[in-house]
Amino acid sequence: MKFVSHMDRALAEARAAAARGETPVGAVVVAPGGRVLAADGNRVRERADPTAHAEMLALRAAAVALGSERLTDCDLYVTLEPCPMCAGAISLARIRRLYYGAEDPKTGGVAHGARVFSHRQCHHVPEVYDGISAAESADLLRDFFAMRRNAT
Amino acid sequence: MKFVSHMDRALAEARAAAARGETPVGAVVVAPGGRVLAADGNRVRERADPTAHAEMLALRAAAVALGSERLTDCDLYVTLEPCPMCAGAISLARIRRLYYGAEDPKTGGVAHGARVFSHRQCHHVPEVYDGISAAESADLLRDFFAMRRNAT
Repeated sequence: MKFVSHMDRALAEARAAAARGETPVGAVVVAPGGRVLAADGNRVRERADPTAHAEMLALRAAAVALGSERLTDCDLYVTLEPCPMCAGAISLARIRRLYYGAEDPKTGGVAHGARVFSHRQCHHVPEVYDGISAAESADLLRDFFAMRRNAT
Repeated sequence: MKFVSHMDRALAEARAAAARGETPVGAVVVAPGGRVLAADGNRVRERADPTAHAEMLALRAAAVALGSERLTDCDLYVTLEPCPMCAGAISLARIRRLYYGAEDPKTGGVAHGARVFSHRQCHHVPEVYDGISAAESADLLRDFFAMRRNAT
């Protein structure tokens, strides 16, 4: 199914992020016809940029590709439940459908905590589909943090 | 008082944003000793970037200036209550004190709506000081949107 192959691409970006020493999260923005507009993984450390989450980088690159700050009818695939910053950006970008993998009870902002889409101050709410390839995404994160703990 | 002069700088960035046709919001990041690390205004339209809010641009530029994704002990001045995206970024950047001007009941995410700092999923909460030069900030926004309405 199409949404699985896009999530596979997001998982590949997450694995590449882990290989760079970044928290393994990957994201893909897909145009209405199914074309991948942008894909990236976390680059917080590489860029010394607290906002360089996978979702933010993919959203910004997709907006540049379209020449518009609104990604109307585009979909976002991300391997982990977005944090409040990324959820806010997803709403501002007018993403149509958000597909995500593992839930994030510790820092998530969609199904947990701030629940950014669940307030009247949120003027665009995407359709949300969770649990897509969730086990693979969670395994990547668990292995990454286990490796880091063992390395210290 | 020092925090007023930094807010004056943020207001100047907001006025410059209005002159560019952008929603007039400005932000300044200040290092512990009082040095301005970065200052910018909204550039969403100019850059076709839904994430190019004043706070995001100032935080990213300050992180580049320091060569670190953590702006520990730095303060942020912004003319309007941050939205959830920007509030999330402020937490991720470990900003010490957030000073803001006008409240934003429609899209704010600090004192309204998602209240990003008010959940246990938020692992760094800045000190928050609101209402700094609030009238000037609100006037700028009101005049900008009145002008836009009259222009259409």
